Amino acid sequence: VRTLLDRISDRYEAVLFDVGNTLVKQVMTGEPVPSSPELMPGVKEVMSALGSVRLGAVSNTTSMSTAELSGHLEAVGLSSGFEFVLATADIGRHKPDPFPLELAADKMGIDPSAILYVGDNESDKFAAEAAGMDFCYSGPDLLLALERFSAEPMDPWRRAVRGVRTPDVSFAEQLRTHLDGLVKPPGSLGRLEDAICRLAAIQRTLSPTVDPAGGAVFCADHGVAEDDHVSPWPQSISATMAGLIAAGSAASSLFARTADVYLEVIDVGLAQGPTGTGCRTESVKAGTANIRHEPALTADDVRAALSVGASTAERLTAGGSQLLCVGEVGIGNTTASAILISHFCGLEPRSATGRGSGIDDATLLRKQELVARIVEELRGERDPIAVAARVGGLEIIAIAGLIVSAAAIGVPVVLDGVTTQAAALLARALVPESVHSCIAGHRSSEPASRHALEHLALEPVIDLDMRLGEGTGALLAVPILRAACRASAEMAKLSDII
Amino acid sequence: VRTLLDRISDRYEAVLFDVGNTLVKQVMTGEPVPSSPELMPGVKEVMSALGSVRLGAVSNTTSMSTAELSGHLEAVGLSSGFEFVLATADIGRHKPDPFPLELAADKMGIDPSAILYVGDNESDKFAAEAAGMDFCYSGPDLLLALERFSAEPMDPWRRAVRGVRTPDVSFAEQLRTHLDGLVKPPGSLGRLEDAICRLAAIQRTLSPTVDPAGGAVFCADHGVAEDDHVSPWPQSISATMAGLIAAGSAASSLFARTADVYLEVIDVGLAQGPTGTGCRTESVKAGTANIRHEPALTADDVRAALSVGASTAERLTAGGSQLLCVGEVGIGNTTASAILISHFCGLEPRSATGRGSGIDDATLLRKQELVARIVEELRGERDPIAVAARVGGLEIIAIAGLIVSAAAIGVPVVLDGVTTQAAALLARALVPESVHSCIAGHRSSEPASRHALEHLALEPVIDLDMRLGEGTGALLAVPILRAACRASAEMAKLSDII
Repeated sequence: VRTLLDRISDRYEAVLFDVGNTLVKQVMTGEPVPSSPELMPGVKEVMSALGSVRLGAVSNTTSMSTAELSGHLEAVGLSSGFEFVLATADIGRHKPDPFPLELAADKMGIDPSAILYVGDNESDKFAAEAAGMDFCYSGPDLLLALERFSAEPMDPWRRAVRGVRTPDVSFAEQLRTHLDGLVKPPGSLGRLEDAICRLAAIQRTLSPTVDPAGGAVFCADHGVAEDDHVSPWPQSISATMAGLIAAGSAASSLFARTADVYLEVIDVGLAQGPTGTGCRTESVKAGTANIRHEPALTADDVRAALSVGASTAERLTAGGSQLLCVGEVGIGNTTASAILISHFCGLEPRSATGRGSGIDDATLLRKQELVARIVEELRGERDPIAVAARVGGLEIIAIAGLIVSAAAIGVPVVLDGVTTQAAALLARALVPESVHSCIAGHRSSEPASRHALEHLALEPVIDLDMRLGEGTGALLAVPILRAACRASAEMAKLSDII
Repeated sequence: VRTLLDRISDRYEAVLFDVGNTLVKQVMTGEPVPSSPELMPGVKEVMSALGSVRLGAVSNTTSMSTAELSGHLEAVGLSSGFEFVLATADIGRHKPDPFPLELAADKMGIDPSAILYVGDNESDKFAAEAAGMDFCYSGPDLLLALERFSAEPMDPWRRAVRGVRTPDVSFAEQLRTHLDGLVKPPGSLGRLEDAICRLAAIQRTLSPTVDPAGGAVFCADHGVAEDDHVSPWPQSISATMAGLIAAGSAASSLFARTADVYLEVIDVGLAQGPTGTGCRTESVKAGTANIRHEPALTADDVRAALSVGASTAERLTAGGSQLLCVGEVGIGNTTASAILISHFCGLEPRSATGRGSGIDDATLLRKQELVARIVEELRGERDPIAVAARVGGLEIIAIAGLIVSAAAIGVPVVLDGVTTQAAALLARALVPESVHSCIAGHRSSEPASRHALEHLALEPVIDLDMRLGEGTGALLAVPILRAACRASAEMAKLSDII
């Protein structure tokens, strides 16, 4: 009979534990460490239930060496289970600094995303999150705590990060050979051949396909748009457009219909809910704060938006989608895109800032100044979550979540314009391999688009000077990819005719 | 009751007649002109039957002035019908020089293509053709001759040339205003907006459409390919590919199926008939002569191929097609394309000559040398028919015929790669306005393609480094144009939401 705790072994390669108040009763600061410490409730049961998973212990202490800590664990009969033990006194860095946990992951040779850290206080949680590990509070009874944790569905974003895989280029190579054997001069379908070889590697098949094709348009608002007028459109237009796309009367809905793409419209953070029906609501919060004055989001908001994106990829692919188009609606989001692209590509911010949906010279100047200031402020920031929290927006972060999740599932993501390209750069900063599952649908006329595609090493399928967003550029690429897939599958072979 | 001769008035604005042996019995050279000349049989009947058409007479003579010729016609009771009379002695230039006929057209203010010239010998025919007029032999009885001529169906190519019209830009301007009022930033669909405005002007509608979409792949062989090995493929591959396209297992057939385009495959000059069934046979001759040694075709071959193309446009549009894709199959035809493009664009031939379906350096050098030699030979040749006859191929000429016919019908033609672009340049040389009905489907990776598109002032919808031909690049553009047309027709208006 499988127990709830078997899920821990399914999900993680290792579980690390804090010691005081997690495994053994903590002594008050200044009191002497007892020679026979008392185990916390449920620890024995947990240790016997965690069969195949590797175990370790990382404890904050200024008074005990690692050797002493191991002795301490031995005294309660636990030491044999732990392949790695660390007392932070030995390294002089303590949680919430993630370094002790990173060191543990490094020494055990396990990716942090495959590790669960269990501790009793918030500094444990901060350290785990900063190290890229999942975290579980130990609580008054460790067995109950881990059972409750196991019973929770795994966060789709965590599942995505855990599962990301690189496309298998051997499928691309085999498909190239197949294409060279079809009734056409070798390579004569040009970059279309590159595109379907990439599809083959991502889907791990010699029969790449776009059908059924799905898509998601994430919609969210930007505080900067409401107060700073970086766009000629009022913020309320985001909600209106979300409603129009869902109702089938926006450009992207019509492109989706002619391209036979099932398109979801998702409110991940509109300031006011979408107009009309048909729009899915998974709002993290009602728009970001104004980045001129404060961070757009909290780190928790960022993680929530990543989860919305990841769960969207899971839902659409569970519904059969073999390829996902992404798009966005968010008045003011070319400002956030320009900041993200400048930051991740190391660009001169002014050259990356364009006129978005059509602003005048004065507005452009103000927008460039703002972009430059925040890019300067973020210089040297290595944590993508922190960057995303400073800048937003929720739609961009959700797309990044979708990209990483799709890469885990093995489904290609067709990018749209500059905002989705900013999302792809964020996804790459979070999980580098994820970018290999992206296909560039088109090159936007926004100046940052060219830079972003170069840095992503992606060649667009379409290049029509479009700058509409909503997924339009991704959707237009679908019939072209479909034609190529069908040709690959059904064309006669040279060997049949010569 | 309408008579056969009423068709003359339907088809032409004017009929010009030769005089000697056409209207009046000719005297032998050197004999004195009789004071009361004898009318040719049928002339009286013809004159009374040609009601609404304007009449003129142009006669070769060295001994008679125009005034004397008019007197001569008056003597037989004909002068009142002729609004224009010319004796070539007055201008010192004589048929087969087309100048006397061109002068007549000019003085009467009528386009030569709307004039029928009737004469009794070959120099009359040559003069008429060179002047761009239709020609009818007068024969022993003028009434019988014109009745027989009227009973013949009008040549589709002549009908195309007669009917060519320029797109109505007022529709493009109105559609632009309409697009600016839809729920998107003005101009944000980029060059896609230009493309559908162009469709609107060609189709003379504010609801441009691609559906139903039709297409034609013209197939023909080139003598130079058989003898000179300018291609790595044997000439027989042309027939094989024609058969495969018709059978649905070539790239273009699969692209057509995914793009929902009805595609005809037409043998307009294969060296051996197409393999299998489903290919339409309208062969002008079994491949061109080797242009290294002799002209590819006769002028009559060229006109026959133009007619095949023109009748294809008529047939497909009669079947409902609102837009026509063009493509070609013809091993060796990038050689002809390079010559035509160099000639019509005034390019340095070597820079316009590419590797086609993939030739080695030695073959490329030989191909470039041949292209350069024939371009040099054609330098200064102003007659497009003569250029086409020198170079071929029949598939290129047929496409030019289709383009001119489509321009007359008011249906856009989506071009494919370099060979169809050469055809568009030929069409423009024949009938300049015809080019305005073309849409560039894609830019081929052949070097001449970029030059051709620049000279045609066309921006391609797709740019994927393809070089397959068969119409593939045209067919891929159709779903993109379809999406744009549908968005234009069905998107919500800004005025509905603000």
